[in-house]
Amino acid sequence: MRYTSAALESLIDEFAKLPGVGRKTAQRLAMYILREPRAEAERLAEALLEAKDNVIRCSVCQNITDVGVDPCALCTSKARDRSVICVVESPVDMLAFEKTGHYKGLYHVLHGVISPLDGIGPDDIKVRELLLRFTMPQSPAVREVVLALNPTIEGETTALYLSKLLKPLGIHVTKIARGIPVGAELEFIDEATLSRAMEGRTVV
Amino acid sequence: MRYTSAALESLIDEFAKLPGVGRKTAQRLAMYILREPRAEAERLAEALLEAKDNVIRCSVCQNITDVGVDPCALCTSKARDRSVICVVESPVDMLAFEKTGHYKGLYHVLHGVISPLDGIGPDDIKVRELLLRFTMPQSPAVREVVLALNPTIEGETTALYLSKLLKPLGIHVTKIARGIPVGAELEFIDEATLSRAMEGRTVV
Repeated sequence: MRYTSAALESLIDEFAKLPGVGRKTAQRLAMYILREPRAEAERLAEALLEAKDNVIRCSVCQNITDVGVDPCALCTSKARDRSVICVVESPVDMLAFEKTGHYKGLYHVLHGVISPLDGIGPDDIKVRELLLRFTMPQSPAVREVVLALNPTIEGETTALYLSKLLKPLGIHVTKIARGIPVGAELEFIDEATLSRAMEGRTVV
Repeated sequence: MRYTSAALESLIDEFAKLPGVGRKTAQRLAMYILREPRAEAERLAEALLEAKDNVIRCSVCQNITDVGVDPCALCTSKARDRSVICVVESPVDMLAFEKTGHYKGLYHVLHGVISPLDGIGPDDIKVRELLLRFTMPQSPAVREVVLALNPTIEGETTALYLSKLLKPLGIHVTKIARGIPVGAELEFIDEATLSRAMEGRTVV
């Protein structure tokens, strides 16, 4: 045993399991917990268990929501444009769009992308649930599906797969623009991005 | 509310209170907890509360130990040299020395250093407890006290204060060497360290 307290040792071990937290950081976090009042540690402990017990997936958009709020607040909001669905890989991607305050439509969270190398096929992500949103009798009239997937091989593959599924249903399928990020310097942009930016040029 | 789940939001808030954890990292940690089985979250929650309930300070050396192990394992170990006490600022400093596997004496953890600017005087750190180790009737014969405090103004002040207290008790007071770290290049060492290294030169 490296520490003089078994309880401290096991707290450090648990912290070190978190992503991006090494032994040194785990040690610093554990020492912080020892210094703080017990109420602080209790709040974190409760928040951990409550998140596990109360967070579910919205039955419509598959985004995370609380027990008792299904469909989620976004899906039931009267303020959103129900004719557009933005398809994202994960809840954090949805959050990134929400932070812009610009997009007013609905979302659909796939919880993954198709990745044959990792053995992840269309049935392992929320594709069926996406299709249900167009085929259910009470479905709202969706005009457009915006594919907002990461610009990786897997993201592009998934986008291609979804567009082939959705177009026959008469849905206008688009994907977000690839191009130079705002504030970047052309000199330092990679070739692939520059090529995409040139291809996707728009009339000024 | 920025998130679609109140439980997730509060978990992110709690994670973000930890030192060195910003909103983005807190979000990543919370998402990790959502993905992991409930047992993982339970283990972390339990470890948090157990650390608060079971970790105490050793009544002799003031280092952290478990309830029921007081004096701590180090203080009661038969393998340690009881004639030397190494004085450190915090439990992590003690750990750093233990990792070397080189020092075989006892420790005393001050839990702070004297810092008049922050209103921390000798009575706010474990100085009285250190003196008790020499004045109690059953005290072992301590020959030497090694001051291993950080090389800061506060650390030096505390070292000076302690040496003035301990020398009259007939104790040999030393402090760890300041000099060039192993593996460093002289060219890049600051002037203060180089001066100390020159002052502290030893016969080869």
